Amino acid sequence: MGTERTGQAGFRQDKQIWFHHCDPAGIVFYPQYLLLMNEVLQDWFQTALGVDYAGLFAERRIGIPTIRLECDFLAPSRLGDTVAFTLTVQRIGTSSFELRFECTGQEPQDVRVRIRAVLVTMSLDDHRSVPIPEDIRKAMEQYCAPSQESREASNVKEEEAK
Amino acid sequence: MGTERTGQAGFRQDKQIWFHHCDPAGIVFYPQYLLLMNEVLQDWFQTALGVDYAGLFAERRIGIPTIRLECDFLAPSRLGDTVAFTLTVQRIGTSSFELRFECTGQEPQDVRVRIRAVLVTMSLDDHRSVPIPEDIRKAMEQYCAPSQESREASNVKEEEAK
Amino acid sequence: MGTERTGQAGFRQDKQIWFHHCDPAGIVFYPQYLLLMNEVLQDWFQTALGVDYAGLFAERRIGIPTIRLECDFLAPSRLGDTVAFTLTVQRIGTSSFELRFECTGQEPQDVRVRIRAVLVTMSLDDHRSVPIPEDIRKAMEQYCAPSQESREASNVKEEEAK
Amino acid sequence: MGTERTGQAGFRQDKQIWFHHCDPAGIVFYPQYLLLMNEVLQDWFQTALGVDYAGLFAERRIGIPTIRLECDFLAPSRLGDTVAFTLTVQRIGTSSFELRFECTGQEPQDVRVRIRAVLVTMSLDDHRSVPIPEDIRKAMEQYCAPSQESREASNVKEEEAK
Repeated sequence: MGTERTGQAGFRQDKQIWFHHCDPAGIVFYPQYLLLMNEVLQDWFQTALGVDYAGLFAERRIGIPTIRLECDFLAPSRLGDTVAFTLTVQRIGTSSFELRFECTGQEPQDVRVRIRAVLVTMSLDDHRSVPIPEDIRKAMEQYCAPSQESREASNVKEEEAK
Repeated sequence: MGTERTGQAGFRQDKQIWFHHCDPAGIVFYPQYLLLMNEVLQDWFQTALGVDYAGLFAERRIGIPTIRLECDFLAPSRLGDTVAFTLTVQRIGTSSFELRFECTGQEPQDVRVRIRAVLVTMSLDDHRSVPIPEDIRKAMEQYCAPSQESREASNVKEEEAK
Repeated sequence: MGTERTGQAGFRQDKQIWFHHCDPAGIVFYPQYLLLMNEVLQDWFQTALGVDYAGLFAERRIGIPTIRLECDFLAPSRLGDTVAFTLTVQRIGTSSFELRFECTGQEPQDVRVRIRAVLVTMSLDDHRSVPIPEDIRKAMEQYCAPSQESREASNVKEEEAK
Repeated sequence: MGTERTGQAGFRQDKQIWFHHCDPAGIVFYPQYLLLMNEVLQDWFQTALGVDYAGLFAERRIGIPTIRLECDFLAPSRLGDTVAFTLTVQRIGTSSFELRFECTGQEPQDVRVRIRAVLVTMSLDDHRSVPIPEDIRKAMEQYCAPSQESREASNVKEEEAK
């Protein structure tokens, strides 16, 4: 499965559609896309951001729960497909950040799923939000979607976890 | 697990949080809520709408894919919790409909998750949208959220699958 | 879903086969039987043995990992089926016990799956086996398969976790 | 994730342990090993045997259900681990075959799970067993565990699906 940084500052990863992702209609059952997206997210942390995901959890005691999710399922994927996920950072707040995922077939215009996810950095000890650690913030900035960044910079409304 | 029709025209079902729903932080991993929601959806069809869900698929050759999903994860659920899902119909279009799910703890104000889902009725033979069958539409209407219905009736914009 | 104690000292529970249990061949994908079996196991602890499963984990710090599994998948189950799981205790050792699960269709002779599982009681603090707590052992004994019990009593070989 | 043919005629593939594989004890929940094993199995068909797995299903109308499974869970795996699966063929019958999977940590002696699986080739049209297609049989033979092969050759008892 190839992994690369795309021209538009995204993180791209191919994923294979396996038998257990598919439903009786022979197409991916939609919650499975969220598991695939989570694997991409973890791989991004690990390989692109250089953050030890397991260590973040076990040693730094920081979890990154998803607090908001928007998904559009535009076209089906089938057993045997190789789909491509592209992750971009849309916004980095104090203790939350917004990611976009686009899942396509092998042609970039063959969009299967679009996901917008808002995640928070949370202490695993008291389950309260904590500021995004500086090393993670710095690493994430490289994956910000450039055009969006400037366009939204002025009117970003922090969408924080309580 | 109790199942009942609520005062506000909703369909309510309790669900137990099991070990396999929970993640290393000891709380429900969010895609698991979507599986639970899907069980509630199928049970609603089967027991409340009186529609044989398996037969809909196998004999009538109609699938009901989710095309849009919005979720807010507001508070965590833990192993051993019994959560309550309440389903209401927000909109019934020609070949799509919108459902809302609220998942709470045992106190109704202890909201854990809110989900808005748009589903389409689709032919399993040519994978194109088909009008919602009349028996299903009729049965669904009883679960429409009354206040919303009138409020939104004038400015509903049909959000159909292509 | 009905739950009862069967004549042969078993614990029986019905389970609905949902869409997400089924694969592109339209039948239950076998790992899903293990999730269903786990739900039955937890329900047995909770409702039949009177052991708070979540508390066992969170307060008594005891986990019950499966260390050995044998499954025979004899006939397929389909979307819409209601299957019946019957759990019997085959052996209770010092810190391990063996359960049998039989999953049938609505006719008892329509056997779909047979599972034999060996589980151990383990301290969650040091991950070493601990003796089965007396309250759990006592409660379990009522679900022992009677004939087996006497037949195997003399030559049981304790299969303990290290 | 590396993929290679081992000296002992096995097929080896590394797998990452992700967040969603782990349970509240922070270790892999055992049914997840079976999903990982299934991915290895499909990858073996696709990349090592040169058999189009999706095509086998969709065009040749052959399914490969698992009819018997034996698993020993010997040591836990944790979030962040990279485990190695090694697949060997133990027996090739008329319409069934037996595979062994060993899952280890990065040291080969750090065995986490051992799985023995018996699978059958089945017609998806009438759900009856069919002889293993010649191309698949030929390709599989290269992955037979050599010592076992000769040792068991004389007394193999065909364990066929009915």
